Amino acid sequence: MKLLRVGPTGREKPCILDADGAIRDASAFVDDWDGDSITDDVLKQVARLDLSGLPEVDPASRTGPCVADVGKFVCIGLNYADHAAETGAEVPSEPVVFFKATSAICGPDDNLEIPRGSTKTDWEVELGVVIGKETKYVSEADAMDHVAGYCVVHDVSERAFQLEGTGQWVKGKSADTFGPIGPWLVTKDEIADPQDLSMWLDVNGAAMQRGSTKTMVFGVAHLVSYLSQYMSLQAGDIISTGTPPGVGLSKDPPQYLRHGDVVTLGIEGLGEQKQTCIDG
Amino acid sequence: MKLLRVGPTGREKPCILDADGAIRDASAFVDDWDGDSITDDVLKQVARLDLSGLPEVDPASRTGPCVADVGKFVCIGLNYADHAAETGAEVPSEPVVFFKATSAICGPDDNLEIPRGSTKTDWEVELGVVIGKETKYVSEADAMDHVAGYCVVHDVSERAFQLEGTGQWVKGKSADTFGPIGPWLVTKDEIADPQDLSMWLDVNGAAMQRGSTKTMVFGVAHLVSYLSQYMSLQAGDIISTGTPPGVGLSKDPPQYLRHGDVVTLGIEGLGEQKQTCIDG
Repeated sequence: MKLLRVGPTGREKPCILDADGAIRDASAFVDDWDGDSITDDVLKQVARLDLSGLPEVDPASRTGPCVADVGKFVCIGLNYADHAAETGAEVPSEPVVFFKATSAICGPDDNLEIPRGSTKTDWEVELGVVIGKETKYVSEADAMDHVAGYCVVHDVSERAFQLEGTGQWVKGKSADTFGPIGPWLVTKDEIADPQDLSMWLDVNGAAMQRGSTKTMVFGVAHLVSYLSQYMSLQAGDIISTGTPPGVGLSKDPPQYLRHGDVVTLGIEGLGEQKQTCIDG
Repeated sequence: MKLLRVGPTGREKPCILDADGAIRDASAFVDDWDGDSITDDVLKQVARLDLSGLPEVDPASRTGPCVADVGKFVCIGLNYADHAAETGAEVPSEPVVFFKATSAICGPDDNLEIPRGSTKTDWEVELGVVIGKETKYVSEADAMDHVAGYCVVHDVSERAFQLEGTGQWVKGKSADTFGPIGPWLVTKDEIADPQDLSMWLDVNGAAMQRGSTKTMVFGVAHLVSYLSQYMSLQAGDIISTGTPPGVGLSKDPPQYLRHGDVVTLGIEGLGEQKQTCIDG
């Protein structure tokens, strides 16, 4: 299933994309798509719904973030061998774990606010893994049982704030609108192999990132298991699993986002995002 | 006012400590102490309540975390001149910003779970600042208008997970029970000067940390303003402002927490916490 949230910011309704691409309002069945509703049990019931009986939503409506009330927005750095190479970093021997602020989360096509004082706002298309149940000290073999599905994440990053300060990356990852998620939470049954998805990102129509989750250093199951040794994960938490090559920082000379730039990005089977950059 | 949440985990009721130290149930007036209720407007109404008319709560009840639904748990590292000195680090030229997982939050007297595989679980008493309203690009002069109050935070830290890995600290700060907050959210009107509070932490009754918020490098107003340039803050977010000297890492030889150890800690005017360490 492709689950989405449609409506004005803060008042989105939970919807489902039907086989014909129509948006169906599921708010008669669930309050929202959040940690309470993206569990195995609820999703099984939702899968049995006759979507043709649900009200259609105007396709011109705004799409919000595909998950509400995200508790943790965990990110993995330098997790593509080819991206690590382009930044001059060594491939890490263990996952590099940091957080984005959950207040950075926005809809996939919302404007991207360039923070005041920013000169180095950069792009990163990433595969997001959405947790479906409590996860603590879980083995790699059992890890995928804890995944509800996947979504596109744009891990927008301010490189000066991230890298030129104190060594901690959080500050360059957490501005408002730095975390578009969606358009859809795609349930895991629809993704045959999360380690074989092509992904791309363009700026003003020019190709910037081209990659595949094939070159991830630490795969989804490993990451879920690894993280769960250090913190518990809850339904609705999102893990953003790192970016393939082609970020602005690695260009010669580096290239960063400016007011008026348009970023488009997508992942095979997970849909596309489009953001217009504005001054914050 | 001293606001607290009392009851079993996940089912705490919002309460108020009255002038005689009795716990009064305020759940007829607010759903919980969270971002919706710790605003100026609601707290003004609460301040007018006749507490003697509210039901008393059994003082033997469990105290939960003093704020519910914390959106962000922001921490500042090396923010006491005397603590930076003891760790051999230079006093930072700007605040060192990192996050703790909100899933680490627990009640002030809950057991402290030492994570599996941990050998270096350490203590840090810290002043917590609780945000009372949306905060974005706020000046230092206006910053205190955005503070609802203060609480004791125990920023429990696993030093191997924090420092011996990839350089990002989140992993050593985020285990379940690594963030006791409370016992009370003390509204700011009760704290004459947040930069003049004594603070202490003992392990098994032996003095470990003795300090004062006087030696903070970056004070509360500066931190709120600084953070708001890089991320928006919401009502209910907590900023943990760093720890004074005396952590286990800095002892010679280093000393860490083990099953059965009892940690007690407190800050002048903000109450005390007591945790018993158990294996996770």
